[in-house]
Amino acid sequence: MSCNREQQRDPVIVLMTDFGLENTYTGQMKAVMLSICRNARFIDLTHSIAPQHVELGAFLLERALPYLPADAIVVAVVDPGVGTQRKPLAIETDRQIFLGPDNGILTPVLDSLNVTSCRTITNPAVQLPKQSATFHGRDIFSPAAAHLACGMDIQQLGEPLDPVRCVTLQRKTLSTTTTGGTVIEGSVLFTDHFGNLVTTIDTTLLDPAEAWVVESGTTTLPVVKTYADVGQGELLAYVGSFGTVEIAVRDGNAAKLTSMREGSPVRLQKKTV
Amino acid sequence: MSCNREQQRDPVIVLMTDFGLENTYTGQMKAVMLSICRNARFIDLTHSIAPQHVELGAFLLERALPYLPADAIVVAVVDPGVGTQRKPLAIETDRQIFLGPDNGILTPVLDSLNVTSCRTITNPAVQLPKQSATFHGRDIFSPAAAHLACGMDIQQLGEPLDPVRCVTLQRKTLSTTTTGGTVIEGSVLFTDHFGNLVTTIDTTLLDPAEAWVVESGTTTLPVVKTYADVGQGELLAYVGSFGTVEIAVRDGNAAKLTSMREGSPVRLQKKTV
Amino acid sequence: MSCNREQQRDPVIVLMTDFGLENTYTGQMKAVMLSICRNARFIDLTHSIAPQHVELGAFLLERALPYLPADAIVVAVVDPGVGTQRKPLAIETDRQIFLGPDNGILTPVLDSLNVTSCRTITNPAVQLPKQSATFHGRDIFSPAAAHLACGMDIQQLGEPLDPVRCVTLQRKTLSTTTTGGTVIEGSVLFTDHFGNLVTTIDTTLLDPAEAWVVESGTTTLPVVKTYADVGQGELLAYVGSFGTVEIAVRDGNAAKLTSMREGSPVRLQKKTV
Repeated sequence: MSCNREQQRDPVIVLMTDFGLENTYTGQMKAVMLSICRNARFIDLTHSIAPQHVELGAFLLERALPYLPADAIVVAVVDPGVGTQRKPLAIETDRQIFLGPDNGILTPVLDSLNVTSCRTITNPAVQLPKQSATFHGRDIFSPAAAHLACGMDIQQLGEPLDPVRCVTLQRKTLSTTTTGGTVIEGSVLFTDHFGNLVTTIDTTLLDPAEAWVVESGTTTLPVVKTYADVGQGELLAYVGSFGTVEIAVRDGNAAKLTSMREGSPVRLQKKTV
Repeated sequence: MSCNREQQRDPVIVLMTDFGLENTYTGQMKAVMLSICRNARFIDLTHSIAPQHVELGAFLLERALPYLPADAIVVAVVDPGVGTQRKPLAIETDRQIFLGPDNGILTPVLDSLNVTSCRTITNPAVQLPKQSATFHGRDIFSPAAAHLACGMDIQQLGEPLDPVRCVTLQRKTLSTTTTGGTVIEGSVLFTDHFGNLVTTIDTTLLDPAEAWVVESGTTTLPVVKTYADVGQGELLAYVGSFGTVEIAVRDGNAAKLTSMREGSPVRLQKKTV
Repeated sequence: MSCNREQQRDPVIVLMTDFGLENTYTGQMKAVMLSICRNARFIDLTHSIAPQHVELGAFLLERALPYLPADAIVVAVVDPGVGTQRKPLAIETDRQIFLGPDNGILTPVLDSLNVTSCRTITNPAVQLPKQSATFHGRDIFSPAAAHLACGMDIQQLGEPLDPVRCVTLQRKTLSTTTTGGTVIEGSVLFTDHFGNLVTTIDTTLLDPAEAWVVESGTTTLPVVKTYADVGQGELLAYVGSFGTVEIAVRDGNAAKLTSMREGSPVRLQKKTV
């Protein structure tokens, strides 16, 4: 699906952080990056990850991977350990290059992509000369990403990690428990703008030929296809756009209607016919 | 007002949705679009429309139309019927091309622009191969918009609707009632970041040579020109930047001071001199 | 730090406003700007300044200055006096050009950069023909910025202010009080997405060779280097990424834990050893 009107290929930098939108943090990052690489283009995947929720960041990154431009630079910063000895990483795959702290935020990159190079960002020339102790997103990751976007080779960012060390970098994943092939237990991961409850339960765990129900308190919801399969104002469960089970209210707000929120347990039960 | 420093004309894609900013929905859309059309540029008109408030989306789109670049691709997705049989539309005018569901969100395009082509997006080649039942913004509208941005002709998106069918597509508009030329009744449409109450009452309904007051509960507010026409902390009504009557507090927050909110009735009365 | 893959230099427009993100205000501004100057690129420094908080805007602009691209056009609009006689300014420095109302929002530009030209935006040809009384961000500052981005000389925007008048333009700064070199008193400026409390106390006021504590109610916090210097869930004070003292909780939310919020007094005391 190429573009015949295209005359250039500006580098794309994808940003995902927990810095929020109510301040100048991400604006400062973009200012740093455009100062170094003027023709970079940005995709703000999100900056509203719950503060320091590394697992959620790793999940959102994983589910966005299939949609990212093949040659993007991806900066993923959820970084509760900023200012400690945790290493700033640069991981090259046969598709994108990913930058982020060694705390599990890059788990899906290590687990699902073909990693070709693992490095720590140590070269002072790709970092801002004056560094804060709390904002490596601006002072380390942004200038490093901009240099990569401008054509710098990843080898210039810093020392390589040996392949074994790369494999053993920090990982964080969401947990679901499957019991006897008939029960899957997970939890609510986050609530979206519609009040839909996105759960941790990946629908690859469900055999689509079988019927499942969500059990939540005294309520039992069949897993259906879309909102229109239930009446207005009714609760439903379905395979959401993240590939996990979601709970929603047709033309309504499930987070308000139920008492469920981030972390609430969700139980799927195979329906005995 | 052309730009003499300009060396290229990157396509512009304008986005308006109710997907919110606290998640990766709009980031995924942009990732899909830049994967297809690398040199597209985005304008986020807003992603914070109240969930599934089609009329509000149609109003905001209408009031933004005079400002949009003349050759933009506009993607407007407020889509409570996603996953049902409602059609995904592509409407070409002598200015922009608009994409959105057939539910009234594109009302101002049908009503105020010169429509040259009406189509449904049915060509699988302009859609993502794997589609969710709940996120056509990413899976249908984004790739279709990117292909248009890259130079694809609208005819390749899908089947044309005949002109009569095009005229009868779904419409949704905000209602105001005018009684005897002396009373106009509408409601609060939304509250902005300042706590200003933007109403549905279009000021073309008011003869500027006449004096009008807003009656709200026991309060009577003259319609004035700007904030400085009243004292600090005082309520005022004026013609807002959307071309409708707004209610505000000078250096204050009208939504907090009054008990008015989205949907609250607003009554304008011609002043008898 | 130039970019060897670069083939062009698109103009960069930096935006900072109190318009919020929950509406179409900033989207309308970008639509106006891209209609005039198609190859402009935007950095949203922030749009979430507390409504009409000019001092906060001036502070955030000041702290972002070192990171902005050297040739950017900067539009800073926090404008409680919109619609009054306050002048719309264009200030050229030997680095960027800044646009904003004459109310103090451009204080750091006047105080810390080398100003080469001061003008009021009066030329109707660089403004929208139809103007609202309340949204000069869209109707005056955006088209003026886009014309500058496209290569127009600042002299075409409007009349020059004489150098003395330029020096005496409105200023607004945050106040801190230093007593006897051992006590510094300021306040909380804002709370960020992590619940960290960013204060007005510039750390250039603190001799780094000395030890200081923050006194807040009955609590005494040593000023440390980073989060990891205290235990999980403990309060700390440190030099934040804005160059001022911040108060945080390691892996927690200081705004929630303490009763402090915007405007709360903060007192630093030199530690007697």
